[in-house]
Amino acid sequence: MKYTTGQEFISELIGTLVLIAFGLGVVAMVVLFPATPAIPGEVVKGGYTNIVLGWGLAVTMGVFISAQISGAHLNPAVTLALAVTGRFSWSKVLPYLAAQMMGAFLGAAIVFAVYYGQWIKVDPTFSQTAGVFSTFPAVPGFWPGFVDQVVGTALLMGMILAIGDHLKTPSAKALAPVVFGLLVVAIGASFGGMHGFAVNPARDLAPRLFSLVAGFENNGLVGSTIWIIPVVGPIAGALVGAWLYDLTIGRALKNESAPSVPAAAVQEAG
Amino acid sequence: MKYTTGQEFISELIGTLVLIAFGLGVVAMVVLFPATPAIPGEVVKGGYTNIVLGWGLAVTMGVFISAQISGAHLNPAVTLALAVTGRFSWSKVLPYLAAQMMGAFLGAAIVFAVYYGQWIKVDPTFSQTAGVFSTFPAVPGFWPGFVDQVVGTALLMGMILAIGDHLKTPSAKALAPVVFGLLVVAIGASFGGMHGFAVNPARDLAPRLFSLVAGFENNGLVGSTIWIIPVVGPIAGALVGAWLYDLTIGRALKNESAPSVPAAAVQEAG
Amino acid sequence: MKYTTGQEFISELIGTLVLIAFGLGVVAMVVLFPATPAIPGEVVKGGYTNIVLGWGLAVTMGVFISAQISGAHLNPAVTLALAVTGRFSWSKVLPYLAAQMMGAFLGAAIVFAVYYGQWIKVDPTFSQTAGVFSTFPAVPGFWPGFVDQVVGTALLMGMILAIGDHLKTPSAKALAPVVFGLLVVAIGASFGGMHGFAVNPARDLAPRLFSLVAGFENNGLVGSTIWIIPVVGPIAGALVGAWLYDLTIGRALKNESAPSVPAAAVQEAG
Amino acid sequence: MKYTTGQEFISELIGTLVLIAFGLGVVAMVVLFPATPAIPGEVVKGGYTNIVLGWGLAVTMGVFISAQISGAHLNPAVTLALAVTGRFSWSKVLPYLAAQMMGAFLGAAIVFAVYYGQWIKVDPTFSQTAGVFSTFPAVPGFWPGFVDQVVGTALLMGMILAIGDHLKTPSAKALAPVVFGLLVVAIGASFGGMHGFAVNPARDLAPRLFSLVAGFENNGLVGSTIWIIPVVGPIAGALVGAWLYDLTIGRALKNESAPSVPAAAVQEAG
Repeated sequence: MKYTTGQEFISELIGTLVLIAFGLGVVAMVVLFPATPAIPGEVVKGGYTNIVLGWGLAVTMGVFISAQISGAHLNPAVTLALAVTGRFSWSKVLPYLAAQMMGAFLGAAIVFAVYYGQWIKVDPTFSQTAGVFSTFPAVPGFWPGFVDQVVGTALLMGMILAIGDHLKTPSAKALAPVVFGLLVVAIGASFGGMHGFAVNPARDLAPRLFSLVAGFENNGLVGSTIWIIPVVGPIAGALVGAWLYDLTIGRALKNESAPSVPAAAVQEAG
Repeated sequence: MKYTTGQEFISELIGTLVLIAFGLGVVAMVVLFPATPAIPGEVVKGGYTNIVLGWGLAVTMGVFISAQISGAHLNPAVTLALAVTGRFSWSKVLPYLAAQMMGAFLGAAIVFAVYYGQWIKVDPTFSQTAGVFSTFPAVPGFWPGFVDQVVGTALLMGMILAIGDHLKTPSAKALAPVVFGLLVVAIGASFGGMHGFAVNPARDLAPRLFSLVAGFENNGLVGSTIWIIPVVGPIAGALVGAWLYDLTIGRALKNESAPSVPAAAVQEAG
Repeated sequence: MKYTTGQEFISELIGTLVLIAFGLGVVAMVVLFPATPAIPGEVVKGGYTNIVLGWGLAVTMGVFISAQISGAHLNPAVTLALAVTGRFSWSKVLPYLAAQMMGAFLGAAIVFAVYYGQWIKVDPTFSQTAGVFSTFPAVPGFWPGFVDQVVGTALLMGMILAIGDHLKTPSAKALAPVVFGLLVVAIGASFGGMHGFAVNPARDLAPRLFSLVAGFENNGLVGSTIWIIPVVGPIAGALVGAWLYDLTIGRALKNESAPSVPAAAVQEAG
Repeated sequence: MKYTTGQEFISELIGTLVLIAFGLGVVAMVVLFPATPAIPGEVVKGGYTNIVLGWGLAVTMGVFISAQISGAHLNPAVTLALAVTGRFSWSKVLPYLAAQMMGAFLGAAIVFAVYYGQWIKVDPTFSQTAGVFSTFPAVPGFWPGFVDQVVGTALLMGMILAIGDHLKTPSAKALAPVVFGLLVVAIGASFGGMHGFAVNPARDLAPRLFSLVAGFENNGLVGSTIWIIPVVGPIAGALVGAWLYDLTIGRALKNESAPSVPAAAVQEAG
């Protein structure tokens, strides 16, 4: 144990705060500063490139600031999948989840404070722009969004393990925060259409709670079940991704390098 | 032999699955979520940047997950060119090709499943969006597309060997998956107009077979010879690229570092 | 002391000159070469991606050219925050600030000289394009812009310290100029709407002074208090960011690696 | 002398061929495949991002394939500035320049061959698209373009030397081809408006000669003096950039590391 639980809690909280401040910030930019006087909330074409790049950079920054102390999970689905596969201590799971939720909530508050002046100009009744905070489905029904979240998070989790196994030397690890950012750009560019590539329960639920507190209508929480999919989908997906990786690539790599990969290696790279 | 043939087969299958899931995913995003209610299948301007970045990231992720075990060929044309130039065992060629075709087919199925809900909204008769799965020519005739595929894949193969010879230290190798992604971004940005930068028979033919199975019309396979060019063009191009590299840069580097570059070095970096 | 004060002055001047030449250059490109014959100064959608990428690359280049000799602060707010937190000698603060202001002024002059021919075509009375040189608020009033600049610069400063603590090996440091560029891309993409992501008093005030000298109207300096926010906001933000970092992540890392991190390590990576 | 003059000639020829094939390829893509049935040759907004990214990647690929043998100058202005400042043998200058011109001419021919089918559809008289091959001024007169080329190439040359002095460890050098690509993206994004960021006489003159041979009208060569600026401007700019760098940063670094930086170090990193 190099760091105390309190230090890990603070690190995970700040990492997730940074992730969400940058991530929601770029969505606010695209939604609240439309090129044409379009309907607020409508994401115009060119802006989507910014959104995926912005979320990727948000991950890179969140990982840089929290990787050394808490391993930069920044995502309850990742924390749970690491615990289920024996890579992370179950006793730390609750503190990590709490830190991630608190960090994401504070990140959402920062974005709200920064853009408040523009918000009351573009959507003064807070009725059309809850999508800055959390994700919404493109088509109705449970299954389209659920499948999307399972696949997106399975790719996220499998690739996190693969990248951790690939970038093992100290200098290679320096590259890891950038690569994890590229991974999220890839998921957003390729699997962001059906349910806004949440792939992270804290990224979605905590800002959604903030949007409720701040008085946004149509938040997907009150009188709605929309909030459920980006919570359960990512957890299921992360487990699927970690199991599939361990069954295939992970097992082959493990057999080769005799004593099984220690949890710390994966954690530190993450 | 660090890994068994079965492990290499699985690695190459999963690497190509990841490549195709991300790669077709970004095409689906651009085609199925048009900015304006435009004709489905029409790629609007801003979207092309996303497509080339998305395919580059798809390659980066496919290489990260499969480089350590199977060397991340992910492309029958690359496998064949490595075998023809003595860098890869002929006995492994068939398993690799089978794994690449199977992985690409499964990757296409995943994209179809994720976007099914949107697909039946935008193109319910599956008559206009086979272009999500495979490439189509910009102008009629055999030669324009063939020349394009030969040049694009020759650049791909020559640069794969050059990058492998350049990134030799362990820490430099860590950078290789990102650089191979940039290479595919470059090919897409510069040589993607005439035949959609397939430069990979498995990337084109396996998803095209899936589109036939899934019931897409105008798939370029039934009553059409369109499917031939992105199969034979890349194979011819990879051979041209590898031979030209070996005749020029490769020979000079080999003379200098006396005992010829071992196949494994190239393979591992790939 | 590896270098003399004069060498550090020249290094910081040239680094900031390079930063501002590239940074204002990309704004000039987007503003002075509009896609349609639109109102000069109106930034069209696609152009914003270029602006954030261009400023990120400007930082990368400015850091590459000045990191070895002067530590590449390039920003009075960064210099002050490093001095206040004991990482930088107070005796060097004034020379650094002077070098940054002079470099930024010269960088602005270079951009004016290069684009003079286009400028007199698009805005011959110099009445609408002062925004090439310095930032302007999206909404009226002191607080919206101030909060934006404090948050943006706090993220900048906290992440500079985090990245410096993360990239410690010699090969990892090679990556630092690129990562600092990505950081500024992230800030521009996520926090560029309210006051143009100045986050740097020299970047804003010195070119604004140049725009006054060159005869631009509506420069935010004469008969206006607009220039104050991007001067005081970044300084306050950098102090907040450095203090928050030191209270949380910085303290935990320091406790672990016993003898506190020497100033030179942070400076050199920066 | 690790390599023969013939090997260096071939390496420099292939490097420049790769640079020009990718570089002109991306311009052909944007010009010949317009989003709307616009006037051929008009570069639409979104496309400019692709052009600057495409040229940056073209440089990255050209450097990867030729850095080890010939040091990847790929640019007569760079070769001359290295010779004038004592970093490169004068006896090799003419072979390098010849290789660069031949490589660029062949690269242009490849792009013409690949896009021939689309070209005769969009501009069958070859009267409006010579801009695919070479650069043209935004405003009339000698000085605007000349100043632009001098500043752009001075930044290019100064940064090449700075990056070479910064990336010295073997693993840092692995990053250099990517960083040189980013440098050209920065120049294109920030200084590409006035004369198309040629910053390289071979990049401009050799494809312009090809466009004359291929029968393009308005090529800037016959009955025009347009071709002169992107030849003399870059040479003057590279000398200015190298001298300014050596007078400032270069001298300070040299004093510190006693025995002056050997030519080979700069060359290899380039």
